Amino acid sequence: MMELLTGLLLMMLSLCEAPAVPSLRLDVYVHATLELLALVMVAFELCMKLRWLGFHTFIRHKRTMVKTCVLLLQFVEAIVVLIRQTSHVRVTRALRPIFLVDCRYCGAVRRNLRQIFQSLPPFIDILLLLLFFMVIFAILGFCLFSPNTADPYFNTLENSLVSLFVLLTTANFPDVMMPAYSKNRWSCIFFIVYLSIELYFIMNLLLAVVFDTFNDVEKMKFKSLLLHKRSAIDHAFQLLVSRQRPMGVSLKQFDGLMRFYRPRMSARDRFLTYKALNTSGAPMLSLQDFYKFYEVTGLKWKARRSGEHWFDDLPHTTFLIFKGINLLVKSKAFQYTMYVVVAINGVWILVEMYKLNSGFSWSRFVPWSYIVFLTIYGVEVLLKITGLGPMAYFSSGWNLFDFSVTVFAFLGLIALAFDMEPFYFIVVLRPLQLLRLFKIKLRYRNVLDTMFELFPRMASLGLTLIIFYYSFAIVGMEFFADVVYPNCCNTSTVADSYRQINVTCGNKTVLEDGYYYLNNFNNILSSFVTLFELTVVNNWYITMEGVTSMTSHWSRLYFMTFYIVTMVVMTIIVAFILDAFVFRMNYSRKNREPLENPEDENGIVFEVEVSRDEALATLELYKQTCPGLSSLSSLQGVLQAMDRSGHSSLVYLGRRSRTKSDLSMKMYEEEMQEWYAEYSRENLPQPNQSVKRDLDSPVPDPAPFPEPQLNSQTGPHSIN
Amino acid sequence: MMELLTGLLLMMLSLCEAPAVPSLRLDVYVHATLELLALVMVAFELCMKLRWLGFHTFIRHKRTMVKTCVLLLQFVEAIVVLIRQTSHVRVTRALRPIFLVDCRYCGAVRRNLRQIFQSLPPFIDILLLLLFFMVIFAILGFCLFSPNTADPYFNTLENSLVSLFVLLTTANFPDVMMPAYSKNRWSCIFFIVYLSIELYFIMNLLLAVVFDTFNDVEKMKFKSLLLHKRSAIDHAFQLLVSRQRPMGVSLKQFDGLMRFYRPRMSARDRFLTYKALNTSGAPMLSLQDFYKFYEVTGLKWKARRSGEHWFDDLPHTTFLIFKGINLLVKSKAFQYTMYVVVAINGVWILVEMYKLNSGFSWSRFVPWSYIVFLTIYGVEVLLKITGLGPMAYFSSGWNLFDFSVTVFAFLGLIALAFDMEPFYFIVVLRPLQLLRLFKIKLRYRNVLDTMFELFPRMASLGLTLIIFYYSFAIVGMEFFADVVYPNCCNTSTVADSYRQINVTCGNKTVLEDGYYYLNNFNNILSSFVTLFELTVVNNWYITMEGVTSMTSHWSRLYFMTFYIVTMVVMTIIVAFILDAFVFRMNYSRKNREPLENPEDENGIVFEVEVSRDEALATLELYKQTCPGLSSLSSLQGVLQAMDRSGHSSLVYLGRRSRTKSDLSMKMYEEEMQEWYAEYSRENLPQPNQSVKRDLDSPVPDPAPFPEPQLNSQTGPHSIN
Repeated sequence: MMELLTGLLLMMLSLCEAPAVPSLRLDVYVHATLELLALVMVAFELCMKLRWLGFHTFIRHKRTMVKTCVLLLQFVEAIVVLIRQTSHVRVTRALRPIFLVDCRYCGAVRRNLRQIFQSLPPFIDILLLLLFFMVIFAILGFCLFSPNTADPYFNTLENSLVSLFVLLTTANFPDVMMPAYSKNRWSCIFFIVYLSIELYFIMNLLLAVVFDTFNDVEKMKFKSLLLHKRSAIDHAFQLLVSRQRPMGVSLKQFDGLMRFYRPRMSARDRFLTYKALNTSGAPMLSLQDFYKFYEVTGLKWKARRSGEHWFDDLPHTTFLIFKGINLLVKSKAFQYTMYVVVAINGVWILVEMYKLNSGFSWSRFVPWSYIVFLTIYGVEVLLKITGLGPMAYFSSGWNLFDFSVTVFAFLGLIALAFDMEPFYFIVVLRPLQLLRLFKIKLRYRNVLDTMFELFPRMASLGLTLIIFYYSFAIVGMEFFADVVYPNCCNTSTVADSYRQINVTCGNKTVLEDGYYYLNNFNNILSSFVTLFELTVVNNWYITMEGVTSMTSHWSRLYFMTFYIVTMVVMTIIVAFILDAFVFRMNYSRKNREPLENPEDENGIVFEVEVSRDEALATLELYKQTCPGLSSLSSLQGVLQAMDRSGHSSLVYLGRRSRTKSDLSMKMYEEEMQEWYAEYSRENLPQPNQSVKRDLDSPVPDPAPFPEPQLNSQTGPHSIN
Repeated sequence: MMELLTGLLLMMLSLCEAPAVPSLRLDVYVHATLELLALVMVAFELCMKLRWLGFHTFIRHKRTMVKTCVLLLQFVEAIVVLIRQTSHVRVTRALRPIFLVDCRYCGAVRRNLRQIFQSLPPFIDILLLLLFFMVIFAILGFCLFSPNTADPYFNTLENSLVSLFVLLTTANFPDVMMPAYSKNRWSCIFFIVYLSIELYFIMNLLLAVVFDTFNDVEKMKFKSLLLHKRSAIDHAFQLLVSRQRPMGVSLKQFDGLMRFYRPRMSARDRFLTYKALNTSGAPMLSLQDFYKFYEVTGLKWKARRSGEHWFDDLPHTTFLIFKGINLLVKSKAFQYTMYVVVAINGVWILVEMYKLNSGFSWSRFVPWSYIVFLTIYGVEVLLKITGLGPMAYFSSGWNLFDFSVTVFAFLGLIALAFDMEPFYFIVVLRPLQLLRLFKIKLRYRNVLDTMFELFPRMASLGLTLIIFYYSFAIVGMEFFADVVYPNCCNTSTVADSYRQINVTCGNKTVLEDGYYYLNNFNNILSSFVTLFELTVVNNWYITMEGVTSMTSHWSRLYFMTFYIVTMVVMTIIVAFILDAFVFRMNYSRKNREPLENPEDENGIVFEVEVSRDEALATLELYKQTCPGLSSLSSLQGVLQAMDRSGHSSLVYLGRRSRTKSDLSMKMYEEEMQEWYAEYSRENLPQPNQSVKRDLDSPVPDPAPFPEPQLNSQTGPHSIN
């Protein structure tokens, strides 16, 4: 956590350093001291790591070595800054994200980076092909169009290359063709052929190559993760069985393992996990049972409610009322009525907006329709919460969405009532209600569900992108801060876009504004926006030419490199989305039913029945093995619950949300069998050895857990 | 063929009709008569078809019915034009491609169209989601930005929608944000969120959906094609076995089948095909042998040369010389020397061009390096042709490429020498030689080979696109011909792009030209170029706004529809390329070896040995069954060849290029077994029935071929 904070602090520093956001500017003295402080913290962590890992491992761990070097460099630079009291050209600040990436919470980002690096070799191959065609066409274009003096795009070979590079991004498309086209209509063939080959063929090829590598890497990752888990379980099993009972793991030993593996787990949950694994009902866990270990450990256990509804325990009249509400809320008629209301609301908003054609003003904005619809939504939310019970209501993502949109709308109303101007935008969010209409069709539900499932991965990809942005922003700020301003770049072809003049037309003065001087590198936030514009690529050459005309033409290298880097990242994002959706669609084609039923689909559920005797026996066992633990209270709670309800047994449900790995398991079912077979062929001698060692040495008590288990346990993490 | 010509003629007519290409303008009288003529021809063909198919089938065949309706409509219109002597608004001309698509040679285009229609339903679903988000954001944008009077993009709800639609294509990106951004820096979040959701997420989702549907359709098509073939073979086999010999097909019956199935095949090839099928060497073909029928029928047979080289028969001294050349040409050293030469040539051209910075002129263009390199290439080509023999040389695509580039370079030299200006562009093609360098690396070879393999499919996709272009071009010409011209559109925001004025700066006059008036719909060629520019989407809104400002704002509908249609087609093209490459990469991962060997990879080869006795016996058999046939001479040729060479047997090689279906067979090997099993389970009773019928009725002589065989033979075609 401290690592994360330090990393963030270091990155935040660029908000206040030399080309700073105006409101956050700090003195050189202050930010250099802050930086030194953060660096000392990083150094401290590194020292800890050095002690922990030992010198030898430390030296050989590549990432840590890089981090150390960067750290030393930054130290020297920070001290230099402190002494000189002024910032020099510190491009090395672009390396700061390393500290953030290296921290424990950024595993997903590291994984993304690895994936990017893995798809680089084939990507670069195709990129060379792309550049090769570009050079050939640049020579062709130069030969064909340079005799035309009215054509500024092909007058030198360098311009020709740059024009075709920009054309690859289509950013200058009809313009680059126009001078040649106006002279000879057939010259359009050159451009059509170029775009067909480069844009529509080789760029897609790039996508195909990345997509393919991506798929392959995903599958291999899943495979090795799976086999790692399998070998970890094999190992653990061999270590847990005792000499007297070589065929299985008893509850006592299992409990020891769990206490080590998940120290925070309550005794009840440990016992329930054991029960969930033990499907055969035998007193011992067999190896086959044990293989499910990783599927079961993540479950959250909860006693199944004896009744169906949360209001079952209430007195009869109230029960009937709630029951009525419940039935009403669950009825199709109610749902469709709500859909109709939402649809009417949508049409209403559209019509209302359309009538406002003259322009929109906040003051006359609370029409009665807004209040009517909001009341309806409010009543619906209340009905649903009372009818389904708060727990059931909030466990559905869609309901949560409804709820938050409705609450936001209320907040907006309050903001309007109390005239809090900055919060007006909340009011504007109310058309989001319309999103509910998409619940009706299965495909949309699938799509939106997948969207939500993808969100964590997307976020980590976004973070990866931001890290690239950061590095480029630092470099950009160092070289291009304050180079563009209104009415600059008069020597370039894009001067118009940077113009800001008052034009007098007849009797009124109009400000003619090209606005592009706003796309600058003057501080880190502007840089981010500029880089986003470059990512979208449309008209990016205006920014490039503007900066180039004010600096040297080597600046183009920066922009072109950035384009290629974002192309890689974007292609990977596309490949990722493509992969995820194709996967999902294949999956839903394989098992039709679970997706038809929207309520149950998002979780894996295990059911375990606990009888009174079992619970008592377990409690006894636990009291023997580790009497001083407070976690026993959870087990006592089970007994109390049984007493209260009067049943002799209780059913517990273990739930967890479905992960990508569960989906993969279903998808690769056949391949998995092959992999397992392969794996067991390769490892056949090993388990025997391990058993032998086991038999030679006394079985260790599970509580102080043996080393190999630790390894096998961290195995999957090391894959991630 | 006549159908094709008529279709083409009809489409060509639009070159000469009312908004015609200036040099091709024809009188109304002439082109209307031509049109009537073509329509009469189409009508004639339809009548033939009516007679052929019978009235009932004719009525129920959807495509033919549509064609008939369109034909009638066009007839009426053509007559009206002839009478009025002037063209009215004839939007129906957009339907003309139907006549072309319906002809026999455009099967691939029809298939593409079907694929497009098949992926439409899921596509439209996602499109609705896209549009929905667009509407929500349009409302948000209208509310947020319309108070800013300097913002022309969001001042009404309609403008807001249009701006966001254009933003979806990124064509107006930083510009649409700039007015809002300059007022409040945080407004960029609106645009970033919009683009992230719409462009980077939902657009990729569209691709995923199309890709998925596409894959699925391809697989299903392959499956049903395979099963159709299988059932055709089953059927044929049941019909061909005679009562006396129920277990196999004899040569005589097989020959009858082949005479019917491939009337042009020579007797020798029929015999060789039989031999190729008959792998077991038994006198009869079993059903298992017969299953390979479709793999074998397409082979081209050729006697294997007794020696390795084409010059083996030459006298000894000459042989040694040629042998030397052969060894030289095949040596690694020679190949790499050539690569080095090509690389030096490439660098040379680059340097030369770079030095020409001042501009390129044709006259001083024959430097000595050009002649030196050309001589080297010429010598290489000659050496290779003599060393490998012309047949072996030209059978490789790469050699063909080298040869044609070298020949083109020579032609260019001649053009320069004789000063033929329009052919100068040939000289410029010589950097294409550099493409040879990509032969070195396996991946590039794969990519380029795949490129060539894909070419036919790509061409048919391109044709499909052109058909869409044609329809849109006709509609565009009807409504927007001559609406844009220099200095028009002064009321719109894009007036600058249409300006053409002389600006006097100091003492010289510069023509300031926006050129966009060239993107018009004045004739069909201009329309095509304009539509291509709209396809590339960059700056397409300038064309749209220009046209809109000169007509009504309903014109936007045309442009937006076009965008969505091209989006569908383009997505399918992307999906197709993606699919083809991922497929190819998977394939080359599955069988590493064949792709390592670049010579053998592009063909399927069967080897058949024919002994003298067999050939004689077959000749006898053929003389008995059908004495009058001239095709027997090919079989006598075999005997003569044996006499000449003195061998008692000859080996024949049957070759054909590998098709997608062969690749698919390798890929889906496992699934195929399942499909076959499924198929035989379903069809188990059928073969029995057929055998029964066979036994009841006398076995028909194969020569007058029975009807069911015809069906089964056309089975696969009906799938395509």
